[in-house]
Amino acid sequence: MPFINIKVLKGTLSNEKKADMIKRVSETVAEIETSPHPKDNLMPHTWCVIEEVDFENWGIGGNQVTAEMLQAIVAGNT
Amino acid sequence: MPFINIKVLKGTLSNEKKADMIKRVSETVAEIETSPHPKDNLMPHTWCVIEEVDFENWGIGGNQVTAEMLQAIVAGNT
Amino acid sequence: MPFINIKVLKGTLSNEKKADMIKRVSETVAEIETSPHPKDNLMPHTWCVIEEVDFENWGIGGNQVTAEMLQAIVAGNT
Amino acid sequence: MPFINIKVLKGTLSNEKKADMIKRVSETVAEIETSPHPKDNLMPHTWCVIEEVDFENWGIGGNQVTAEMLQAIVAGNT
Amino acid sequence: MPFINIKVLKGTLSNEKKADMIKRVSETVAEIETSPHPKDNLMPHTWCVIEEVDFENWGIGGNQVTAEMLQAIVAGNT
Amino acid sequence: MPFINIKVLKGTLSNEKKADMIKRVSETVAEIETSPHPKDNLMPHTWCVIEEVDFENWGIGGNQVTAEMLQAIVAGNT
Repeated sequence: MPFINIKVLKGTLSNEKKADMIKRVSETVAEIETSPHPKDNLMPHTWCVIEEVDFENWGIGGNQVTAEMLQAIVAGNT
Repeated sequence: MPFINIKVLKGTLSNEKKADMIKRVSETVAEIETSPHPKDNLMPHTWCVIEEVDFENWGIGGNQVTAEMLQAIVAGNT
Repeated sequence: MPFINIKVLKGTLSNEKKADMIKRVSETVAEIETSPHPKDNLMPHTWCVIEEVDFENWGIGGNQVTAEMLQAIVAGNT
Repeated sequence: MPFINIKVLKGTLSNEKKADMIKRVSETVAEIETSPHPKDNLMPHTWCVIEEVDFENWGIGGNQVTAEMLQAIVAGNT
Repeated sequence: MPFINIKVLKGTLSNEKKADMIKRVSETVAEIETSPHPKDNLMPHTWCVIEEVDFENWGIGGNQVTAEMLQAIVAGNT
Repeated sequence: MPFINIKVLKGTLSNEKKADMIKRVSETVAEIETSPHPKDNLMPHTWCVIEEVDFENWGIGGNQVTAEMLQAIVAGNT
């Protein structure tokens, strides 16, 4: 019965990436939870909800995140 | 002081259904919390927030939920 | 696929009350979500998680809640 | 590593107010968490996410909040 | 800046499984979020919090989950 | 009606610090929300819940946080 909730910045995930994230994260969680048994039976009981947060609503270190800040982080320019 | 949070799929609740859900769930929670005392005094301290989640952001068993999947579940065709 | 989360003060719900709350709130949410269809098929897809919060971790109006404050609220002495 | 989540009614915070809230709340939490040490080093590890909730999705005492109800509360007319 | 929250039943994850889950889920989320760029720079900004829920606090279909119910699900006896 | 939720590492806040955090954060949020009106009337409708998370349940960059890691961060030795 794992319930996974992932908050990400809005606009950073295409629908294809969302599908991929839901699939792989759910499989990983169910696999570890049931190991050494196979994960198959727990899969239908594994839920994953993605929440998209506006940049202006997410603060790090007291500052609102911007697209430039995110790009700089991903590029390692921080 | 109960705080109730209900995540549902976006578009599945009309405003009328939201009002009904908030009313009945809040009353049930306050009633059980205060029983055998009456729930009235706890009601103003009972909050209920509904969160609507896009279908593509909700995964069950590693798959994004679709309107067809939800209809099949409600109809018992699963 | 409703997911219900209920935060309550720790120690205010017996196991019997928890069972009752989970049952009645889940039924109410599933019934409203599927109406006018019967709720039965959505029930297995309705989850409810209760979170118990220590009194000293819950603040109202900037003050930590106490057992006395809760009793006064339920009794209407506020 | 504090993670702060603030749910507010949608439309009640300008972008300027959001920036101010993220800044001041993050600083307060980091300051108390690290005291008597200075908060500076914990700041980059302090996150704050604001969630904006539609009025019709927020219930108090079993009733959906309205703009009139919020104005009455702020004005003290309750 | 992904923030991952995973609710699981209390007692089902050893410390070793927790470490594995945090590592693999964080890497998966950061990898998908940054793709086609490498995930390395986003990793320090990827947080994952596991919440352990008492069996009696988790309801499925209106019923509290039991250890027997969880074993039956994992074994496929449902 | 702001609802504030603060996740912190378990054991890092004394009861006195919790009281201080609840008081100051609630006042800050209510003040910004109601500005330029006084915050007083919104205060009773401002809730703040602190959640304490075990070190082994909190991951940063895919690694479980340790007391040593937290001390190093606060001391600036990272």
